[in-house]
Amino acid sequence: MKTRRSDRLIDMTNYLLERPHTLISLTFFAERYESAKSSISEDLAIVKRTFQARGIGVLETIPGAAGGARFIPSINEDEARSFISEMVQEMSAESRLLPGGYVYLSDLLGRPDVLRVVGRVIARQYIDKQIDAVMTVATKGVPIAQSVSEYLNVPFVIVRRDSKITEGATVSVNYVSGSSERIEKMELSKRSLKRGSHVLVVDDFMKGGGTVNGMKSMIEEFDSELVGITVFAEGSFAGQRMVDDYTSLLRVDQVNSQDKTIHVSAGTYLDRVFGNQK
Amino acid sequence: MKTRRSDRLIDMTNYLLERPHTLISLTFFAERYESAKSSISEDLAIVKRTFQARGIGVLETIPGAAGGARFIPSINEDEARSFISEMVQEMSAESRLLPGGYVYLSDLLGRPDVLRVVGRVIARQYIDKQIDAVMTVATKGVPIAQSVSEYLNVPFVIVRRDSKITEGATVSVNYVSGSSERIEKMELSKRSLKRGSHVLVVDDFMKGGGTVNGMKSMIEEFDSELVGITVFAEGSFAGQRMVDDYTSLLRVDQVNSQDKTIHVSAGTYLDRVFGNQK
Repeated sequence: MKTRRSDRLIDMTNYLLERPHTLISLTFFAERYESAKSSISEDLAIVKRTFQARGIGVLETIPGAAGGARFIPSINEDEARSFISEMVQEMSAESRLLPGGYVYLSDLLGRPDVLRVVGRVIARQYIDKQIDAVMTVATKGVPIAQSVSEYLNVPFVIVRRDSKITEGATVSVNYVSGSSERIEKMELSKRSLKRGSHVLVVDDFMKGGGTVNGMKSMIEEFDSELVGITVFAEGSFAGQRMVDDYTSLLRVDQVNSQDKTIHVSAGTYLDRVFGNQK
Repeated sequence: MKTRRSDRLIDMTNYLLERPHTLISLTFFAERYESAKSSISEDLAIVKRTFQARGIGVLETIPGAAGGARFIPSINEDEARSFISEMVQEMSAESRLLPGGYVYLSDLLGRPDVLRVVGRVIARQYIDKQIDAVMTVATKGVPIAQSVSEYLNVPFVIVRRDSKITEGATVSVNYVSGSSERIEKMELSKRSLKRGSHVLVVDDFMKGGGTVNGMKSMIEEFDSELVGITVFAEGSFAGQRMVDDYTSLLRVDQVNSQDKTIHVSAGTYLDRVFGNQK
């Protein structure tokens, strides 16, 4: 039985949202809904208009009988700005202060509402780039990598500081931990990344950039290419950072354990992504 | 300007899908679309019908002017069955065999298409239960916890084997590792779980159940309540398991390193969740 337009639009929206960056053919939808391709084309035009108007993302439509549609998740500037302001507020709470001037972030990075927006925000930055995999280091970078991977619809890989028997053969690199200037080791399962991949690096927090730099070496070991580095938050760092080309959503400028104050501001993201459009 | 029905249905679908288990009021939608509540009610009835027909989930609608709608993600039996069969195929590949009879799973647990369904499948099992948090142990359980947490729209917490300075004060418990009968330690940040929470435990793989049992002790330490345990895969185990009431999506029955064969079958999930409906 032919599916009504209203039902088609709802199911089509769900179907596209669950499969970002995937071309769905007109033929597929026409069969799914037992409807004419011309009707499906009209449906897609409506979906495209609404996705655009509401800042959900871009629906690329390929015209013609052999055509189809591909959903590219995005976020508009207003929504990205208001999310970053909200995070600045949240992170400035005195209760987040930990001994040693650290800031407690684990609750934020375990909240699905926060992670959804983090994923959309970071995916937006690389909307025009080819990315084959998202890389992070265990454990706190994982939720960010997973969210970004959902919106880019590519796998994520987890670099570990300790080898596990369940990873099989690994490639290991040494790196200088920026904050402590110690030499440490990180490993990645050989099976987890294909040679020649385009890799996006994400992490929860960056200070000296040592860990991120280690991931850069790891990407080289896999004959792969670094596309970009985006971190949830960067901390202030007195020395020379080991990485210069990176993006941060937030910046922890100053942590004062005596006054119990944390000063947080927006990172480089908004300028880098929306700066030139103004 | 009043939004057209077709546009409302598309945006409403996206809005509800992004906020599972959250009551959205008629008033909110009426204002968002500058439309009458009666029209919004009709829209919601259409969304409800399509979500049901396509197995997307249940749209609970609360009638009346003060009412609204709440989206409860779900999955139907056919889709769950075909996903589990697909995973049985994937996991039976000889190339997954690791030394020591382990099975390589990291690629599956880094694929967004797999994780989306894992999340829906596990969330479906607990559709009638109150859950306040999802708990797992670092590192490989994290992607599963995050996916389930998205569909239940509750936070997830990560128990760790090593304490990190960025977690603040932690509670630690000792547990007996089932496979090796060693005493090990796991820790959870004190801030990460409220007392009196209803907690769902998930993990990637279970053999003797020692790790899961450790999480049970941890939940007790937080004066909280265990709602259920679901693992992606269980392995065969010769001795007495430390946990008996659990659900597995898959079962690795036999790993033969000499013949290079892995025998994988469906776990207890389908029977436990859909068994009585037949």
